[in-house]
Amino acid sequence: MAESKKVNINDIAERAGVSIATVSRFLHGHLEKMSDKTAARIQAIIEELNYIPNASAVQLMTQHSGLIAVMAADVDDYFSTEFFKGAVSILETAHYTGVLFDANADIDYEQRQLTTIGRQNFDGLIMQPLTASSQQMQTALTRNLPVVLVDRDLDETIYDTVVTDNYVAARDVALYYQAHGVESVIVISEPLAKVSTRKERFAGVQSVYADVTLLEVDANHVRSELLVTQLVADVHQQGKKTLVFFFKERLMLDIMPFFVRKQALSEDLQLTGFSDTKLARDLDPHVRLIEQDPFLMGATAAELLVAKLTADGVSDQGDAKKIVIPATFS
Amino acid sequence: MAESKKVNINDIAERAGVSIATVSRFLHGHLEKMSDKTAARIQAIIEELNYIPNASAVQLMTQHSGLIAVMAADVDDYFSTEFFKGAVSILETAHYTGVLFDANADIDYEQRQLTTIGRQNFDGLIMQPLTASSQQMQTALTRNLPVVLVDRDLDETIYDTVVTDNYVAARDVALYYQAHGVESVIVISEPLAKVSTRKERFAGVQSVYADVTLLEVDANHVRSELLVTQLVADVHQQGKKTLVFFFKERLMLDIMPFFVRKQALSEDLQLTGFSDTKLARDLDPHVRLIEQDPFLMGATAAELLVAKLTADGVSDQGDAKKIVIPATFS
Repeated sequence: MAESKKVNINDIAERAGVSIATVSRFLHGHLEKMSDKTAARIQAIIEELNYIPNASAVQLMTQHSGLIAVMAADVDDYFSTEFFKGAVSILETAHYTGVLFDANADIDYEQRQLTTIGRQNFDGLIMQPLTASSQQMQTALTRNLPVVLVDRDLDETIYDTVVTDNYVAARDVALYYQAHGVESVIVISEPLAKVSTRKERFAGVQSVYADVTLLEVDANHVRSELLVTQLVADVHQQGKKTLVFFFKERLMLDIMPFFVRKQALSEDLQLTGFSDTKLARDLDPHVRLIEQDPFLMGATAAELLVAKLTADGVSDQGDAKKIVIPATFS
Repeated sequence: MAESKKVNINDIAERAGVSIATVSRFLHGHLEKMSDKTAARIQAIIEELNYIPNASAVQLMTQHSGLIAVMAADVDDYFSTEFFKGAVSILETAHYTGVLFDANADIDYEQRQLTTIGRQNFDGLIMQPLTASSQQMQTALTRNLPVVLVDRDLDETIYDTVVTDNYVAARDVALYYQAHGVESVIVISEPLAKVSTRKERFAGVQSVYADVTLLEVDANHVRSELLVTQLVADVHQQGKKTLVFFFKERLMLDIMPFFVRKQALSEDLQLTGFSDTKLARDLDPHVRLIEQDPFLMGATAAELLVAKLTADGVSDQGDAKKIVIPATFS
C-alpha cells in the first residue's frame, strides 16, 4: 500500500498517453467523451499501479468533486428522506454522489449550512427551502452554485423548482368532500405565513369552503389529546358534517391517534391530509389521504440539476423552469 | 468579486505574518492553538481582501476537509435521522460538518457508498452498518479513516461502537410481561441472521420465554392485514394471554393499524416493541414501547469520533470502546 502513494494522476496520464483531463474524466465516470479503448487502458494502468485517487488533487484540477448537497427542511419528515432517495437514484446514474444536509426546521441554521456548502467543493445543490428569499440564499452560498428547489417556491424564481400541485390538489379534495355532503372544514397546519405550500393549500380549500376554520399549531408543542377533545366536542355541538384537513403528515400522525382512540371518526367527522405513508388510512375507514410523490420530485430535481451540470457554459438563470408533480387522492 | 480570485491562502498568511497552517487552522475553526489576537488579525485580513477559501486548496495542504460522513442503514427510519441529528449537534461544536449517506438497506450499495466516502476527502465516518464484517468495511473504504459505529456490532470489534442494551432491554420487558401474567410471546422481526441487534433482542426474550414464537417477515412485502387476521384467530384459539413483540418500529407501524382497526387489543392481546416515536402508544392503552435514544447515541458516537480526530498521532485500533446507551420502557 505504501507504494500506491507514490503514484499520481500525472503518472497515469503519461503511461496511458492521454491528458490529465482525460484521466480525471475517467475517475469521475464521465466516459462519454472517450473511446472504450482509452477507458480500458486507463483502468488497466490504474489497477497495475494500484493507484488510489486523491480527491483533493482531482478537484483542484477539475474544480469538480462529484458531490451534490441535498438539503432538507427537516430530515425527520418522511418526505425529506424520500426526495433524497429519489435524487440520489438519478445522481448516481450520472456518477454524482448525493449527501443529505438537515436544516433542522431552523432558518438561521439553514443559512449557516448554506455557507458551509458554498465553501466546500459541492458541484450543486438540491434544496427544500425554509427561507422564502432567493436573495438570502445567494448571500449565504457566497458563490454561483447550480441550484434546484424542491417542494417550495421562493419569492423570486431564479432557480428551477419541482413542486406538487398544492392548490389544485387541496381544491379537488375540498370539492370531493363537498359533493359528499361535508358542510364544515377545519384545517390544522403549522403557521401559513411564508411557506408557499401551506398558503397554496389553504387557498385551494378556501376556494370551495369560504368559511374554512384554520387552526395554526406549533408541531413541537401541540397538546394533541386536549386539542382533539375540544374539537370533537365542538363538532358535536355544531351538528355539522365535518372534515378535519391536515396540511402536514407529522401533525396528522401526532394528533390522529386521539381521534382513533376515542373512536370519534365517523361519516360525520372525517379526516384527510397530505401524507407520504399509508399508516393513517390503515387505521380507520374515515380517513383518506393526499399522497405526494417525493421520490419522483427528488428524481426530477436531480434530472434538472444534472442537465445544468452537463450543459456547456453558464446556465441561463432567466430561464427558471417549474415542474409540477401531481398529488393523488385515495 | 473578480479581485477575490487573485487572493490565496499564502497571501493571507504572509500579510498576517503567520504560517499557512495557522491560516488553515483558522479557516477550519480550530482556534485552540492560536491567540485571540492572531485569530482577529487573520479575520481582519480575510475581510479586507474579501478572501473566499477554496476548499480544495485548503484540503491539499491540510488533508482536512472538515466533512464527516454519517451513513444510515436506511434514512427512512426515524432512528437514522435522529442519530444523524445527534451526531451533527456534537460535530458542529467541534467545527465539523456532518452529511448523511443512505445505504438504502442494501449491503452491496453500502459497499459502493463506502468506496465513494474513501475516495472523497471525508475526515471521518459514523456508521450504522448493514455489513457484519469489519474486513469488508476496510476493503471498501480503501484507506484508514477514523470510524465509529452506531446501533450494530461487527464480527470483530476494531471500531468504537455505541449501542442500545438490546439483550437487557428485551429480557426486562419479557420479565415485566411475565410478572403480569402473559403466557405466550410472538416476536415479529425481519430475519435475525447477521444483524446483531435482532439476535440480542431475541436472546433476551428467549431467556424468559423459552418457547417464544418467531415470525420473520420481509418489511417491504409483509401482508399486514392477512397476518393480523391469522394471528388474532390463532391467539383466540390458543386461549393464552399473549404479547406481540415488534423488533422494528417500521414493522410495528405497518402492522399495528390492523390490530387497532379490528379492536383486537385487550389485556389478553398486548403489543410492545422497539420504537422511536410515541405514535403506537397513543393509539391504544394495550401498547407499551421500548424507546431507544438515537439522538444521544449519535451524539455519543460523534464525541468518540471527535476525540479520535483531535488526538495526536494514529489512534490505537486495539483499544476499541463499546458504549451502551440504555433503552427505557414505559
